[in-house]
Amino acid sequence: MLEKIKKIGVLTSGGDAPGMNAAIRAVARSCAYFNLDCIGIYRGYQGLIENDFELLTARSVRNVINRGGTFLKSARSAEFRTKEGREKAARNLTRAGIDALVVIGGDGTFTGAMLLQQEHGFPVVGIPATIDNDINGTDYTIGYDTALNTVVDAIDKIRDTASSHNRLFLVEVMGRDAGDIALNSGVGAGAEEILIPEEDKGVEQMMYSLEKSRKAGKTSSIIVVAEGEKSGKNIFELADFIGENLEGYDIRVSVLGHIQRGGAPSCYDRVLASRLGVGAIEALLRGESNVMIGITNKIVTSVDFEVAIKEQKPLDKELRRVLNITTV
Amino acid sequence: MLEKIKKIGVLTSGGDAPGMNAAIRAVARSCAYFNLDCIGIYRGYQGLIENDFELLTARSVRNVINRGGTFLKSARSAEFRTKEGREKAARNLTRAGIDALVVIGGDGTFTGAMLLQQEHGFPVVGIPATIDNDINGTDYTIGYDTALNTVVDAIDKIRDTASSHNRLFLVEVMGRDAGDIALNSGVGAGAEEILIPEEDKGVEQMMYSLEKSRKAGKTSSIIVVAEGEKSGKNIFELADFIGENLEGYDIRVSVLGHIQRGGAPSCYDRVLASRLGVGAIEALLRGESNVMIGITNKIVTSVDFEVAIKEQKPLDKELRRVLNITTV
Amino acid sequence: MLEKIKKIGVLTSGGDAPGMNAAIRAVARSCAYFNLDCIGIYRGYQGLIENDFELLTARSVRNVINRGGTFLKSARSAEFRTKEGREKAARNLTRAGIDALVVIGGDGTFTGAMLLQQEHGFPVVGIPATIDNDINGTDYTIGYDTALNTVVDAIDKIRDTASSHNRLFLVEVMGRDAGDIALNSGVGAGAEEILIPEEDKGVEQMMYSLEKSRKAGKTSSIIVVAEGEKSGKNIFELADFIGENLEGYDIRVSVLGHIQRGGAPSCYDRVLASRLGVGAIEALLRGESNVMIGITNKIVTSVDFEVAIKEQKPLDKELRRVLNITTV
Amino acid sequence: MLEKIKKIGVLTSGGDAPGMNAAIRAVARSCAYFNLDCIGIYRGYQGLIENDFELLTARSVRNVINRGGTFLKSARSAEFRTKEGREKAARNLTRAGIDALVVIGGDGTFTGAMLLQQEHGFPVVGIPATIDNDINGTDYTIGYDTALNTVVDAIDKIRDTASSHNRLFLVEVMGRDAGDIALNSGVGAGAEEILIPEEDKGVEQMMYSLEKSRKAGKTSSIIVVAEGEKSGKNIFELADFIGENLEGYDIRVSVLGHIQRGGAPSCYDRVLASRLGVGAIEALLRGESNVMIGITNKIVTSVDFEVAIKEQKPLDKELRRVLNITTV
Repeated sequence: MLEKIKKIGVLTSGGDAPGMNAAIRAVARSCAYFNLDCIGIYRGYQGLIENDFELLTARSVRNVINRGGTFLKSARSAEFRTKEGREKAARNLTRAGIDALVVIGGDGTFTGAMLLQQEHGFPVVGIPATIDNDINGTDYTIGYDTALNTVVDAIDKIRDTASSHNRLFLVEVMGRDAGDIALNSGVGAGAEEILIPEEDKGVEQMMYSLEKSRKAGKTSSIIVVAEGEKSGKNIFELADFIGENLEGYDIRVSVLGHIQRGGAPSCYDRVLASRLGVGAIEALLRGESNVMIGITNKIVTSVDFEVAIKEQKPLDKELRRVLNITTV
Repeated sequence: MLEKIKKIGVLTSGGDAPGMNAAIRAVARSCAYFNLDCIGIYRGYQGLIENDFELLTARSVRNVINRGGTFLKSARSAEFRTKEGREKAARNLTRAGIDALVVIGGDGTFTGAMLLQQEHGFPVVGIPATIDNDINGTDYTIGYDTALNTVVDAIDKIRDTASSHNRLFLVEVMGRDAGDIALNSGVGAGAEEILIPEEDKGVEQMMYSLEKSRKAGKTSSIIVVAEGEKSGKNIFELADFIGENLEGYDIRVSVLGHIQRGGAPSCYDRVLASRLGVGAIEALLRGESNVMIGITNKIVTSVDFEVAIKEQKPLDKELRRVLNITTV
Repeated sequence: MLEKIKKIGVLTSGGDAPGMNAAIRAVARSCAYFNLDCIGIYRGYQGLIENDFELLTARSVRNVINRGGTFLKSARSAEFRTKEGREKAARNLTRAGIDALVVIGGDGTFTGAMLLQQEHGFPVVGIPATIDNDINGTDYTIGYDTALNTVVDAIDKIRDTASSHNRLFLVEVMGRDAGDIALNSGVGAGAEEILIPEEDKGVEQMMYSLEKSRKAGKTSSIIVVAEGEKSGKNIFELADFIGENLEGYDIRVSVLGHIQRGGAPSCYDRVLASRLGVGAIEALLRGESNVMIGITNKIVTSVDFEVAIKEQKPLDKELRRVLNITTV
Repeated sequence: MLEKIKKIGVLTSGGDAPGMNAAIRAVARSCAYFNLDCIGIYRGYQGLIENDFELLTARSVRNVINRGGTFLKSARSAEFRTKEGREKAARNLTRAGIDALVVIGGDGTFTGAMLLQQEHGFPVVGIPATIDNDINGTDYTIGYDTALNTVVDAIDKIRDTASSHNRLFLVEVMGRDAGDIALNSGVGAGAEEILIPEEDKGVEQMMYSLEKSRKAGKTSSIIVVAEGEKSGKNIFELADFIGENLEGYDIRVSVLGHIQRGGAPSCYDRVLASRLGVGAIEALLRGESNVMIGITNKIVTSVDFEVAIKEQKPLDKELRRVLNITTV
């Protein structure tokens, strides 16, 4: 079966993440190294349906390793969510002589890949790339480290203002289901408290922390709020709530938003993307399919898509404790 | 009169701006150079009323030139807006043996200084520091250049996502009365269009530009929106308005917010702050008062507070034209 | 004569500078705006001789405004320095139907352009782009502001180490004939002293400053050295010289080198490049030739190549004084 | 024995690394959390000998988490290398009522700590902080991740110039005994080849790679050279060697130098420093001594100083392979 693979397609799908280009580059370079053709598929699964293909040589991917976003672009595809859409995609792949597919993205991306594999027996491996780090079976996803640096850099700037004016800032960061960005950037930025999806009593804990630090004479603070936290209030309502229940704070809100997805990838994300891109091609050459190539304890590993998608990553409780201690 | 000045107070007031610390440093170092005492006043005019003073030596300002915010802190002072408050302030200055005052901030700061001078004959000079660049009589205010770099860097990140997903982004930047940040960062970031307070037909012009570029096949674009633009819609309403009136755009909003005020100052802002800080002390030593020390055509100049505050800066029409041409 | 211009060539030559891409973009976009064809010429004058041409549309220059370097590349051309080489170049231009040329670079670039104009009557305008800011007739050259930020950012990093270890650092920056980078980054980085080509007694002054500050108990300092300073010693010899003549300093050397030429351009450089690119096309359309398009007191102006090349810019003495005062 | 610890000293020693301040902060905050006194010792072991002590409260370490360098400063101490010096140090510790010591630095720092423990039974734990990542028993040292980002950012800038001019750049990075920085930044920056201390045939391999890529038409390349590589040539001699043996390359050298040690720490380094700082205090409270607190597979662990110092870390061969593949 191994000798069958001569041509490999690669696409990026879902929200873009810094390092996606480095992953595409590693895929294309690995193909060149192993004498395989590499076909870039534009706009994710939608491009698969619309035959938006282009040959990628080792040269095509020069000078992309340091660029944010994805030059193959990404898009949502309603059509690919239908059985007919996936049939069309499989037909296009076969017609183009593509033997296997590398998909770069998050759990939505892997779900699509799994269906393609199940329904059409098409060999697919996935590479986890999302700033949220919410994929099971890999310690890190591509883009996460860069996003943390972007967030911490932004909060450093906000703190200049916070401490110049003795203000309390609520800073909203990404993370719909996972508090990893909030927790790590909260520790890294020296935040007072965090609100995350994994915790129920976040608001009470926050009010308690603020009360305590106000009594200690602290008047400028940063609270990092994950967008998916569970208080039922949006960040502006949270600011009002604090203002109504605690005196002596001049409160401001900052929603970091889309800047978190962009920027030149960090060295870590480029190295990770390079490892996983090479790993994906080698996995396909070993005959693997239906797996995500992740990193666990610094080792490149294969994990079934089912595992990557279904399981929920637990919160890093030790780091939660470190936050509590260092904001004393 | 000149020989009377032996001790000079310095404070920062209003919104903080990168480079304020560099200006304080230059004031303190100039005092040391001319054998004057320098007294740092904390929390702006409020600290003046509350005697929140500290001696600043040449050493006190080591390693602050590169820091955002203001280590003297800034605050609003309702009390200083009253005649009684200013009396108290003048009394405190006299009691502390302070002969003259340097105030670093924007037009609100200068208005306060003017009243102190008028009511109590207290010598004051101002240094323009605000990211908005909305002060008349100076080509640049301290902090503006840094804010432009911060905005352009943020939009570069957003564009990574915009072009990966073929999206239209509305990016809100600071500028309540002046479109300088929006216009310059719009040109610098390669934005499609801008909405600014100085223009009435902004929305029509924007819809026209978008229509034109959509027809030309462009599907990802950036619109830079100054917070004080005059459409009567907030940025989310603007996004809805575009969505309702133009098909084919996937629209997102990003409000850059407070990150624009922080960060290490650019080289230009540090040099400008150093020039103006030296200029302020030299102006006081020459016997000047009631003036702002600004920069015009690369020359440090004095401008009456009245002029700095009252006149409105015109929009840079040549640059507006450059934007129109380069987004063709 | 004006109606003759239908097709304009553009090239970059000499050392690359951040913002060159923004200038090319503005040239190409202005051509599109005025319905002219724009021809990109690769590798400077060498590409002119070798017919290395490509049509640049408004689209060709998307997403280049934020990139360092020059996508048209730059090269030295020994052949263009000969009369025969320039004849060949002129022939190629005519054969390609190019009516006028925009050259982006420094004084070497303009000298070449002047000869092409003199010998073949070919219309040429220049855009000043060099990190050294050593062109007469323009307040700023493209790339200079970015280089200053890069230098100041690097020295901020070095100061972390300098003050952690109580060390004296000699930092070499670019500037063969002009001390602008050293003087401005010296002020911006809070350096103790500078050594620049424009001053003869630099070393004596430096030793005096160091002696004074050592007596004042200062043990960590930064000296910024322009590569073209006139002591006759290279920077390592300077370090030895200080070590031999002053006790109590732990001395280190850092040569910043080529990082000063690269990086995403600052907002100022992008705006300047956009202004000058538009200005160059408009000058050609007005029938101008043999001029550099520069900026003076915020106004875009034309200056004869002869003036741009021959005259030497004087040192900014006021800023020298600011440095002396603020390092007291 | 546990109840004996009431007062803990902390110092930084050896080359400074970004994140040292974050580690000091975590130590001071953990002491506050566990109701212990924390004594900051200035200038490493030299300050221990000279009684250069200061009480650190939770407040003392506000706003230091984002600063490069070490506010406790670092210094070499010839005296501490003598038995007498260490005796003096132990005496000073006892006299100040300090029960245990946290030392932050590299292997030289740990060797000193080990001797203090052996000769005087003084409880000491270490925190690994060095940009070189050359400590055994921890996956990462504090400062390494930041240094990688600094290097990659610098090479990105150099590549702007390299590809604008079709040049070959040799870039020297830190790493006297370990090639980790060179290997990781080489992969991250998309370098053509690396020269590292762990490999003997580096130069041959490099010449082979260059020969191959020149034949493939590539004319701009980056070679990353660790300062401790084993060719016996310095980097300028290497450049000459390439120039003499391979035609067609325009070669330049850049020595990144001390900028690699400075700068605001990355989020990863701040989080790591926070974890290890907390871990160090908790280890002391558990009664541990003579150990380094490191991180292995994301778990905070204790490793005997002997192990941390003596063993040599092996090269990451998988990553070496990834480099070979991705530069095809």
